[in-house]
Amino acid sequence: MKPVKQVDVKKNYNVNQLLTEMGLAGVMGAGRIAKAADIFEKMVKEKNCKVFLGVAGALVPGGMKDILIDMLDRRLINVLVITGANLTHDLVEALGYHHYQGSADVDDSKLYEKKIDRIYDSFMLNKVYEGMEDFFKKNIAKFEKPMNIKQFLWTLGSLIPKNNKSILRTCYEKKIPVFCPAIADSGIGLMVWGNLEKGKKIKVDAFDDLREMSRIAWDCKKAGFLYLGGGFPKNYIQQALQFSPKGADYGIQITMDRPEHGGSSGAELREGKSWGKLSKEAKFVDVICDVTIALPIIYSALLQRL
Amino acid sequence: MKPVKQVDVKKNYNVNQLLTEMGLAGVMGAGRIAKAADIFEKMVKEKNCKVFLGVAGALVPGGMKDILIDMLDRRLINVLVITGANLTHDLVEALGYHHYQGSADVDDSKLYEKKIDRIYDSFMLNKVYEGMEDFFKKNIAKFEKPMNIKQFLWTLGSLIPKNNKSILRTCYEKKIPVFCPAIADSGIGLMVWGNLEKGKKIKVDAFDDLREMSRIAWDCKKAGFLYLGGGFPKNYIQQALQFSPKGADYGIQITMDRPEHGGSSGAELREGKSWGKLSKEAKFVDVICDVTIALPIIYSALLQRL
Amino acid sequence: MKPVKQVDVKKNYNVNQLLTEMGLAGVMGAGRIAKAADIFEKMVKEKNCKVFLGVAGALVPGGMKDILIDMLDRRLINVLVITGANLTHDLVEALGYHHYQGSADVDDSKLYEKKIDRIYDSFMLNKVYEGMEDFFKKNIAKFEKPMNIKQFLWTLGSLIPKNNKSILRTCYEKKIPVFCPAIADSGIGLMVWGNLEKGKKIKVDAFDDLREMSRIAWDCKKAGFLYLGGGFPKNYIQQALQFSPKGADYGIQITMDRPEHGGSSGAELREGKSWGKLSKEAKFVDVICDVTIALPIIYSALLQRL
Amino acid sequence: MKPVKQVDVKKNYNVNQLLTEMGLAGVMGAGRIAKAADIFEKMVKEKNCKVFLGVAGALVPGGMKDILIDMLDRRLINVLVITGANLTHDLVEALGYHHYQGSADVDDSKLYEKKIDRIYDSFMLNKVYEGMEDFFKKNIAKFEKPMNIKQFLWTLGSLIPKNNKSILRTCYEKKIPVFCPAIADSGIGLMVWGNLEKGKKIKVDAFDDLREMSRIAWDCKKAGFLYLGGGFPKNYIQQALQFSPKGADYGIQITMDRPEHGGSSGAELREGKSWGKLSKEAKFVDVICDVTIALPIIYSALLQRL
Repeated sequence: MKPVKQVDVKKNYNVNQLLTEMGLAGVMGAGRIAKAADIFEKMVKEKNCKVFLGVAGALVPGGMKDILIDMLDRRLINVLVITGANLTHDLVEALGYHHYQGSADVDDSKLYEKKIDRIYDSFMLNKVYEGMEDFFKKNIAKFEKPMNIKQFLWTLGSLIPKNNKSILRTCYEKKIPVFCPAIADSGIGLMVWGNLEKGKKIKVDAFDDLREMSRIAWDCKKAGFLYLGGGFPKNYIQQALQFSPKGADYGIQITMDRPEHGGSSGAELREGKSWGKLSKEAKFVDVICDVTIALPIIYSALLQRL
Repeated sequence: MKPVKQVDVKKNYNVNQLLTEMGLAGVMGAGRIAKAADIFEKMVKEKNCKVFLGVAGALVPGGMKDILIDMLDRRLINVLVITGANLTHDLVEALGYHHYQGSADVDDSKLYEKKIDRIYDSFMLNKVYEGMEDFFKKNIAKFEKPMNIKQFLWTLGSLIPKNNKSILRTCYEKKIPVFCPAIADSGIGLMVWGNLEKGKKIKVDAFDDLREMSRIAWDCKKAGFLYLGGGFPKNYIQQALQFSPKGADYGIQITMDRPEHGGSSGAELREGKSWGKLSKEAKFVDVICDVTIALPIIYSALLQRL
Repeated sequence: MKPVKQVDVKKNYNVNQLLTEMGLAGVMGAGRIAKAADIFEKMVKEKNCKVFLGVAGALVPGGMKDILIDMLDRRLINVLVITGANLTHDLVEALGYHHYQGSADVDDSKLYEKKIDRIYDSFMLNKVYEGMEDFFKKNIAKFEKPMNIKQFLWTLGSLIPKNNKSILRTCYEKKIPVFCPAIADSGIGLMVWGNLEKGKKIKVDAFDDLREMSRIAWDCKKAGFLYLGGGFPKNYIQQALQFSPKGADYGIQITMDRPEHGGSSGAELREGKSWGKLSKEAKFVDVICDVTIALPIIYSALLQRL
Repeated sequence: MKPVKQVDVKKNYNVNQLLTEMGLAGVMGAGRIAKAADIFEKMVKEKNCKVFLGVAGALVPGGMKDILIDMLDRRLINVLVITGANLTHDLVEALGYHHYQGSADVDDSKLYEKKIDRIYDSFMLNKVYEGMEDFFKKNIAKFEKPMNIKQFLWTLGSLIPKNNKSILRTCYEKKIPVFCPAIADSGIGLMVWGNLEKGKKIKVDAFDDLREMSRIAWDCKKAGFLYLGGGFPKNYIQQALQFSPKGADYGIQITMDRPEHGGSSGAELREGKSWGKLSKEAKFVDVICDVTIALPIIYSALLQRL
């Protein structure tokens, strides 16, 4: 048995050195977050390993957008599954708007009067919807042909100016498949609805993406995943991994959700072995932590290793 | 100020009497779960109040299916938004299969060898997928025309034998709109994918339901909601409520998720006021509890009051 | 394998009938809370089984006091370990004061100005401390002799008028050992401190109770426990159970705390087997739930069975 | 309003640079953990500010011991309140034993047969108790005079060899008051009990420390605190802060516990304002995180700033 090394915090550690030191403790949160960096490193260095990224929760309003873009930009990620809310917040920032540092100790009725929308302690001005309406109005012709959701999202990305940092734009430019089965459940969905009501012919297929998603899983030699939060992004990747040759070889999830009530979001990764979603020999770790704390640390350490 | 009444547990209380007694304490979990029953009662007795039910988490494998069906059957619910996983588990049971009492303290690799899929401490035999394949194969013609997701789900419900208890069947029979924007993320989605690969022409629109969903919200005189877990079902209803005349008048959410990391699932209901999703004067409560504990108690009490 | 029975909520179920029905589902929270009632029933019906009750968290301000008293009064409990805060709140109510239904959405600085102390959404008037001071002033002579903490608490109980419902009074009357190693950490502790500063000779031994506590564990034929929250009450009982002949035979814990960070409060009960605190063959259950929700239901069902 | 800056993770950031960058996001976990470092820095740089450290949870088995020792050694901390379990694990390591990297996915009955005690995924050999028994046997005379708990713990510290890194030893050497009202609830308590049973006269007073603790609070010009976990350490410091001139000026708590059930451990810090434990103008933050993740990062950043 390996002793727990008491973490020694020397001056001038860079992030990777600290995380490596925490890995020597090897237990509880310290051990898990360090292990996540190790697995992430293996996953992206492994040849022929397809890396699936699942993104749920308020990551764009929470300041994680540029980290996600950097991952995509460096092609560390092969497939992105992400909530419509995060894509909407991404579009909002790409159109020049901001999220703001707010507070959760507020009178929400007063925020409503000021037309400020609250996402925990982050604020957004409700007028961003006007900006999105203008954007869709100007570009609606581009969407008036049958497509699947990935094509819809790439089209969206193609319309964002080249120099505006954006998840959607980066996926389009790098041709990274981006899936969002519940896209109707988002501000972007509302924009489409508005145009449907105006008689625009927007026809986006709900199931067609499954063909590409399943094929990617089917064809991969090795598979790895990083789940930032749960929701459908985790579940949709889990579902596809059943078709990978032997389940994922590498897996990381970062979540604050509990497993005991049986929901997919908080389910321990090892459960995936029973379904064939995770390989019997997989290296994996469940990090029980707020993504906005764990991700910058893990990703910082990863960059310092690459 | 009203004193906290120490809960007195007399013999032979029925569920409603106990919950009423807990409501006299008025604080913490005891107070909240009792308040949920009070608000639920008001919501379903209120004339012209549209009641939206959001269902996420492992509620069918967790034994909550018949309660959901009973709610629909009594027309206490006007709109259902539910995850594809729950609909898949509903279909599985409608086809004669079961979920089983298992354990989370198991070797998942051994379950895999035995072809048993684990959902926390509930088990399902993997062979249910064969049954679903047969079902879709037999009925595939019914799906080969353009439709939206609600029509797809009602079609599915129409094919379930009349006497088999089912959420899908009940929604179809009672003509209750049922929405599932992320339907591709489910075993049902996989069945469609299998048929797409065989060249079947299944065309289900991803956005079209938003027209009906928004119209229901727009037209309602009063609105109430019950969120069992979070995920897209909560978010999709929240989104629609922005179009209701003044936000929801009544709201209940039951969840184990935390608010601090900013995700929608754990967001406190009062946050919805800033967006106009919840009325300034709304009666609402956040019950921090496993749904499989809270729901049978709240619903039992409700039935005893009706 | 036993199928998950979908919970059927018939009209006019009493609490026990509902909990029994939830036990037929057998999984997740529904299964666990039902199992807790079954184990509690076995524990109190078992001859020669010593039952240890650990009480932490805001149970008296949360309305659970009378349930605790009822358990003690019926002698279902043989040993009580409880936080000083709960004993202080018990004394406060025994002296005629109340806790009040408040709210957590408040300006705490304003409460301070109004001399209202907040315990989540329960309020207490700060003037209760004056009442406690008077009580101790009047009775201080009773405490001026060397004693251990149990004797100190029984003395306290003996001074509470016979007809005032109180945990302390009931333990004294029924001669139920009550332990509180951290008694200095409480309003009662502050009262003693005030008198120490005035030169009163109060000498209460910090370790002496361990002799009785260990002997009870050592001598018991069978052992069972109910942990309401964690903290030192759980840990102190766990510690003693190491000296029981073969570890506890029955165990229930109800908590909202997580296990992953390694703290004792959220530790899964099965961990106790490694220490010899829980028997290899023990019947036990971890209920992940707010005590103020789970306890009234479990105890109600128990009474309906007795 | 200040925009949420998307976190930019450049290569070669040291820990402080990363945390500073996360602070520019300013929201959710990222914002809170960065704010904790800022407040910690202010607290220890402020002249005449007494800093109280509360330590609960498995911090020594979790690898945090040397960080705690470093804080004490640099005199950043003026008062330590800590659980008996952590002191026992500290003593265990001071006597030359280790904790080991284990796993929570184990058969606890098998660990019992191997005499391995589990603390989540950290292991300890049960034979450490023999080592502690020898230590106490050899030194028992030192404890055979009346003392309070602080004196008892300093005596313990004085007996640990000078070069063995230890929390107890450091508190003794630096004359830092260390309080542990529930010391009986620990392996150290069991050692005392063993000696009481052998007829040794160990008389440790349960309440006497309150005099020193209250005086420190009473006399401080400014006060700050860091709570690592909850339990009695947090509560005992909170209680003393009521006697500080105007409540604490600075406060940090790091915990995974929830507030809604009303327990002290998960209570939001702002609640302390109602009691006068926290100043109206205090700078404070609740970090919802596993201490073994948050502490090394915050403390690393602090050292890089000092």
